Amino acid sequence: MNAIAYAHDHRQEADDRLRDLLSIPSISTLPENRESVELAARWLVEELKGAGLENVTISPTKGHPVVYADWLHAEGAPTVLIYAHYDVQPVDPLDEWETSPFDPTLRHGNLYARGASDDKGQLMVHVRALDALLQSTGRLPVNVRVLFEGEEEIGSVHLDEWLEANRERLAADVALISDSHILSPDQPTIVYGLRGLAYIEVHVRSAKGDMHSGTYGGAIHNPIQALCELISQLHDEEGHITVPGFYDQVVPLSEAERREMARVPYGEAELLAETGALKAWGEPEYTVTERVSARPTLELNGIWGGFTGQGAKTVLPAKASAKISMRLVPDQDPWQMAERVRRYLRAIAPPTIEVDVVDLHHGYGALVPTDTPAMQAASDAYEEVFGNRPIFVRTGGSIPVVSSLQRLLGLDTVLMGFGLPDDNLHAPNEKFNLNLYHKGIETAIAFYEKYGRVS
Amino acid sequence: MNAIAYAHDHRQEADDRLRDLLSIPSISTLPENRESVELAARWLVEELKGAGLENVTISPTKGHPVVYADWLHAEGAPTVLIYAHYDVQPVDPLDEWETSPFDPTLRHGNLYARGASDDKGQLMVHVRALDALLQSTGRLPVNVRVLFEGEEEIGSVHLDEWLEANRERLAADVALISDSHILSPDQPTIVYGLRGLAYIEVHVRSAKGDMHSGTYGGAIHNPIQALCELISQLHDEEGHITVPGFYDQVVPLSEAERREMARVPYGEAELLAETGALKAWGEPEYTVTERVSARPTLELNGIWGGFTGQGAKTVLPAKASAKISMRLVPDQDPWQMAERVRRYLRAIAPPTIEVDVVDLHHGYGALVPTDTPAMQAASDAYEEVFGNRPIFVRTGGSIPVVSSLQRLLGLDTVLMGFGLPDDNLHAPNEKFNLNLYHKGIETAIAFYEKYGRVS
Repeated sequence: MNAIAYAHDHRQEADDRLRDLLSIPSISTLPENRESVELAARWLVEELKGAGLENVTISPTKGHPVVYADWLHAEGAPTVLIYAHYDVQPVDPLDEWETSPFDPTLRHGNLYARGASDDKGQLMVHVRALDALLQSTGRLPVNVRVLFEGEEEIGSVHLDEWLEANRERLAADVALISDSHILSPDQPTIVYGLRGLAYIEVHVRSAKGDMHSGTYGGAIHNPIQALCELISQLHDEEGHITVPGFYDQVVPLSEAERREMARVPYGEAELLAETGALKAWGEPEYTVTERVSARPTLELNGIWGGFTGQGAKTVLPAKASAKISMRLVPDQDPWQMAERVRRYLRAIAPPTIEVDVVDLHHGYGALVPTDTPAMQAASDAYEEVFGNRPIFVRTGGSIPVVSSLQRLLGLDTVLMGFGLPDDNLHAPNEKFNLNLYHKGIETAIAFYEKYGRVS
Repeated sequence: MNAIAYAHDHRQEADDRLRDLLSIPSISTLPENRESVELAARWLVEELKGAGLENVTISPTKGHPVVYADWLHAEGAPTVLIYAHYDVQPVDPLDEWETSPFDPTLRHGNLYARGASDDKGQLMVHVRALDALLQSTGRLPVNVRVLFEGEEEIGSVHLDEWLEANRERLAADVALISDSHILSPDQPTIVYGLRGLAYIEVHVRSAKGDMHSGTYGGAIHNPIQALCELISQLHDEEGHITVPGFYDQVVPLSEAERREMARVPYGEAELLAETGALKAWGEPEYTVTERVSARPTLELNGIWGGFTGQGAKTVLPAKASAKISMRLVPDQDPWQMAERVRRYLRAIAPPTIEVDVVDLHHGYGALVPTDTPAMQAASDAYEEVFGNRPIFVRTGGSIPVVSSLQRLLGLDTVLMGFGLPDDNLHAPNEKFNLNLYHKGIETAIAFYEKYGRVS
């Protein structure tokens, strides 16, 4: 019996095992759920042992543990480092869930639970694929190392340290992550570009304390106004970022990339339908798809100052603040970009105000080559199972581990996702389509088999 | 015995009566203090009867009552409408009071209590002056009508209606209000200009709900950014308001007014010392005193949008809002000014956003002529008691009743204050200087006597 047939015969078991994992509330950000996170890690250890993986261990970090396993008997074949995360987001607002987030429930072919798509369902795709290969054939076509993290939803705070400390036992040829979505059930999608992030907070102060607007208004530079004046100088009228040097390191999009991106069935009409926006905005020389995925951006994430309650309070506030984040493309360095914004804001600030820029977060973007044997194998595997070749896309968001694997281990990642755009990640009623779960298992098996023939 | 001597002999009684009134917690905004507000009104009825006033009545409104009284036997002499308010502000934060706000306490010549300066102390100035005149001479040198309001601290919400309904029994030649401060204990001050107010809220919307900044950033006009872009177009670089027509109705300052204002010992150094500001701001062709009192302003009172908690949330918000108020000078109509800002914001708004402007509050400014017999009498009275002629000033704040008296009854107001700039109005440890209380009583007596000789 081959692995695909084995997987087909064990679909019910695959569903049951996924439900088991989904019923563990492994919310990494909540201290009161610490034991559940541990429980999920121990559950995975048993699962990986049951599948036939070796050297299965729970590896402590300063936070939640890393689960490691390997199978290294495919002599001459390449080695794949499979990364996934078993921690999940919080569930509030709980009253918006149609069924309890940790009581996995099947409706219309979708399994509803927190973590269903992000990332327990996609993690189990690989556990079940490895299980099917090992149970049906007694071996794997490639060497694999498995790395399941418990802190992805809190920024992978201890992962880099762990990767550096375990560099040797992580030696591999390529990394494989299923933690993304495909464009539609019929259109497989491989993410090859992820944006980086620099997140800062800007504080403007014009006086020592709040004042009466009738007593001092007109003679003190209002800090809200001053902050708005600074913010209004961060973009030009067409939406280009005006911070000096901001685009210096941006690698221009190649014609081939732009052609591939033009295949994505997404434009202004789809954008407006999804968001309810009145009109698209942004750099006119780039398409909507390019703007949201392949171009760097500078966004206002929050602003606050003065009186924000009901009614009319005549306060002249002393300070105002904003949160600003930049999505960065390779090779923009997040620390350098934050510093450029800081310098620019200070340079344009008038002498009536004090400007303070605080660093909140930095993450590197990543761009992986699409012409490698692993990418080829992934494309072929998708085509075999879905009947369609994948579209290669860049995504606007960030998956910091992709950059960590690149920078610390020299590994390019194949981002082979099986979620859908409407899976409600980080929101109530998260779901995973069970048909895509099983197609995912088959695609993973096909990938391991095809990639095993490389070398 | 003349009235001044009588007042001097009855200082202790004047202090005791003021303490009595200050011990009643007549906070108009708190429903649970409604009975205390009533109690204060009834206390005043007894006090006015005791002083010898006639037709003393409590007049209900839809909110707190108006106390009315008169004495109209000064044949051939003018009639003065004395306005004051007996309600007070709330007392929070209570723990910042050195002594209990409704247990009047004497320290260093100041009586500490909520309402001490605003406005019970200044109200009692007139009750005691009328008492001294009537007890010592059996008559008043002018006709008086007394109008004590219980809703000034909640915006005098029912006063205009009451004024219109009682127009006949409010017939007078001038209004007199003691609800302001003098520049220093030796420098009497008459306020002749009060600014009006238009208060609006601006809402900018760019999409139907909050979005992920990595998914849509770069293709949606960020509403915080858009709001900031609008706000940055409300002033030019020198601080002039750029709303078309904003200055059209502004009556230019006369040279005489500017000379009088230049006498106020206040400039950039004092402004910076008081506020901790780094540098003064605003219309360069006007002095600091002119900017904060005689020029119209447009201030940002609050702004909010997106994520404002701790840390980094990568939200692209759907909306952002700001509170904006304008201080207006005569003859700027607050409704018209709000409408001009609304039209301007809509005109400059790009097609990527929806702008909604909500009216929150409107109040008319007032400017009273300084060359009238009543002003002359007030100046002379101040000089007699303080040894200094008053400075005539405009004030940046608003006292809406002054405009109501002007618009509804055709009465100009003499604003003869006895508070000090550091009386902590609306703040913990409000106080009234008892020496100024007694000087106030003597000044009021002198005013009634001098104004009684006019005709």
